[in-house]
Amino acid sequence: MSDCYILTDARLAPMHLEGEAGYSQSGAIGVEGDTIAFAGAEIDIPERFDQMPRRPLGGRLVTPGLIDCHTHLVYHGSRAREFEMRQTGASYEEIMRAGGGIFSTVKATRSATDEELLAGALTRIDRLISDGTTTVEIKSGYGLDLETELRMLRVARMIEQHRPIRICTTFLGAHAFPKHMEADDYLTEICLPAMEAAAAEGLVDAVDGFCETVGFSARQIERVFEHAAKLGLPVKIHAEQLSDQGGAILAARHRALSADHLEFLSDEGVAAMAAAGTVAVLLPGAFYMLKETRKPPVEKLREAGVPMALATDSNPGSSPMTSLLLAMNMGAILFGLSPQECLEGVTDNAARALGLSQVGQLKSGMRADLNIWDVTDPAELTYRMGDAPLQQRIFGGVTC
Amino acid sequence: MSDCYILTDARLAPMHLEGEAGYSQSGAIGVEGDTIAFAGAEIDIPERFDQMPRRPLGGRLVTPGLIDCHTHLVYHGSRAREFEMRQTGASYEEIMRAGGGIFSTVKATRSATDEELLAGALTRIDRLISDGTTTVEIKSGYGLDLETELRMLRVARMIEQHRPIRICTTFLGAHAFPKHMEADDYLTEICLPAMEAAAAEGLVDAVDGFCETVGFSARQIERVFEHAAKLGLPVKIHAEQLSDQGGAILAARHRALSADHLEFLSDEGVAAMAAAGTVAVLLPGAFYMLKETRKPPVEKLREAGVPMALATDSNPGSSPMTSLLLAMNMGAILFGLSPQECLEGVTDNAARALGLSQVGQLKSGMRADLNIWDVTDPAELTYRMGDAPLQQRIFGGVTC
Ligand SMILES: [Zn+2]
Ligand SMILES: [Zn+2]
Repeated sequence: MSDCYILTDARLAPMHLEGEAGYSQSGAIGVEGDTIAFAGAEIDIPERFDQMPRRPLGGRLVTPGLIDCHTHLVYHGSRAREFEMRQTGASYEEIMRAGGGIFSTVKATRSATDEELLAGALTRIDRLISDGTTTVEIKSGYGLDLETELRMLRVARMIEQHRPIRICTTFLGAHAFPKHMEADDYLTEICLPAMEAAAAEGLVDAVDGFCETVGFSARQIERVFEHAAKLGLPVKIHAEQLSDQGGAILAARHRALSADHLEFLSDEGVAAMAAAGTVAVLLPGAFYMLKETRKPPVEKLREAGVPMALATDSNPGSSPMTSLLLAMNMGAILFGLSPQECLEGVTDNAARALGLSQVGQLKSGMRADLNIWDVTDPAELTYRMGDAPLQQRIFGGVTC
Repeated sequence: MSDCYILTDARLAPMHLEGEAGYSQSGAIGVEGDTIAFAGAEIDIPERFDQMPRRPLGGRLVTPGLIDCHTHLVYHGSRAREFEMRQTGASYEEIMRAGGGIFSTVKATRSATDEELLAGALTRIDRLISDGTTTVEIKSGYGLDLETELRMLRVARMIEQHRPIRICTTFLGAHAFPKHMEADDYLTEICLPAMEAAAAEGLVDAVDGFCETVGFSARQIERVFEHAAKLGLPVKIHAEQLSDQGGAILAARHRALSADHLEFLSDEGVAAMAAAGTVAVLLPGAFYMLKETRKPPVEKLREAGVPMALATDSNPGSSPMTSLLLAMNMGAILFGLSPQECLEGVTDNAARALGLSQVGQLKSGMRADLNIWDVTDPAELTYRMGDAPLQQRIFGGVTC
């Protein structure tokens, strides 16, 4: 049977959407089963909640459960050796061209068992959970063959049976292509058929592609997007990370959920994203790890009203990060986001980047994914460097 | 009764000091009571260990317990609001001159009870412990009056009674001076008498000072050092963080244990530190948080053979960091240290920065402060962004 209770004496995180969740003190959240039945000021609690057990929070901050909307956390093999190499001066592109980089992860992932993949993923998921993360997106893209791409997505789906967390799966067959193939041949022969097979198995919530000089051209990504459209799947893109390939403009034209990275985003790209409602997913962990100097155009995105999300980009090559709170801190320090923008970036806007309408806000009707923090000021979450003052994590109404 | 056992099938972290600890595979550590009785290759285990229980580690990495040699983690009050202010463009110096910054922490610390100070410190200590930290240095310096300076040091000492950790206390009365006083008057009337009182109570392992345009001049810090010498106390310094004040040269002349920060360290400073054997304590957390662009001269320090340590600088203003592994990662990414240098920086060299000869190495006769990590490659500890694959933490021979 589902539990019903009401959290009182709470500080509700202010969200940019006004209304129920706009209260900043003496707030209350009513939970019925797995759903938020009320969120607002304590004095406005409806009468029908009078009989419900109350849990006073002593003024503690309540936020929506955190959402990591961009990860690659199902993989096998370590890249610590490559990290040592990079510390001696090799660039990301050099490492990729030298056959290191992503291909070492592809090799290790292909040869890993499902059990090994799951065990590694659960370790990383546990770190995210300890930060108060309740929804995680996971991409394929270390298989580059039909079988392994599907296995990665199946393993990602399996996580929900082992941990109290919501998983969104993204097909990223167009992450790279095997060295012995042309990109277009890889798309025709492997990537697009794998997308179809994965979609037929119900393993695909969205389709993604890596648009870059060292990845796929905008024209090639368009083939991926057109195939996704045929299958009725929403799309997103890795774009403008190392150069401007016009990926964000392409994504906007296809009404993509999000365009991610965006260090080299052009003014036209900003405008196109704003017009299409495409979320800008910023990934400061990769920026930091790759020692990039060009930042995404945060002020322009802000001015144009493009919603900004933040994610860990958790992956073994460019962002071995498993703390969404650290991503928030880096979003502030490295990209200049305000603490408020950082919080919206891992709740409301992260939900939009995943096309989810039932999570990311403190609002009645939403899923009761909540964090109770041992602080009163929402800025604390961003200010600390990945130090989680989490008191209680509630997933679908249940503390866990 | 003390436990005796031998860890086998271990990968011992390679340290720059060759000898017993130079083995990289099939290593063993014999523990007798709180002491390392053997460290070396498994085949060299002495006969007298034959009867001891063996704990095979499956090839896992063993390092010395980590040492955080520069923190300010006893304090009260949050600086999250100030962080929001800084995110809108105010500089560290501006905030300090505006009476914000350190003085808000001084005010909150003075009015906090010992119990409040201890509770806050323990929260931060617990985060450090979860990373495998076994020794932590803690400075005073948020009192700026005799009573509070002593209370901070007493609280720091109390931590050892509540957690399995070694605490080193540093008197940092010369951290700042009250706005209504001249620096020299503050030293004469408050700081130096407080140092004497704290030393008389056995609360001072070392004496530190903040040498900066917004702190104390080199001449004033010299008064502090001379007073410390009279009391037989070793010294260290916050130097060359925001400008070159010749603090490191002064420190070397006084044979300081360490000079810390060092972004603006001159070539003469490097040479002086090398000659004096003064450790360079690098604090990438503050560099990152303050968005500094000038890095400490790592290559010159390396060339001159100055030992480099890394620390969290855990403090509420410029480095709200509670992960030594994150400090290692930032030492590599932001300052260009190798993973090996990062590991030495939080073990061996951190011990030197504290004047400790019984911790920081895997060597017989040393304290059995050990970490067993769920990885085989020491580079993993630096490569991950503060994600601790800690399997077991051993403090003085005891798992805890
Ligand atoms: Zn990615
Ligand atoms: Zn300091």
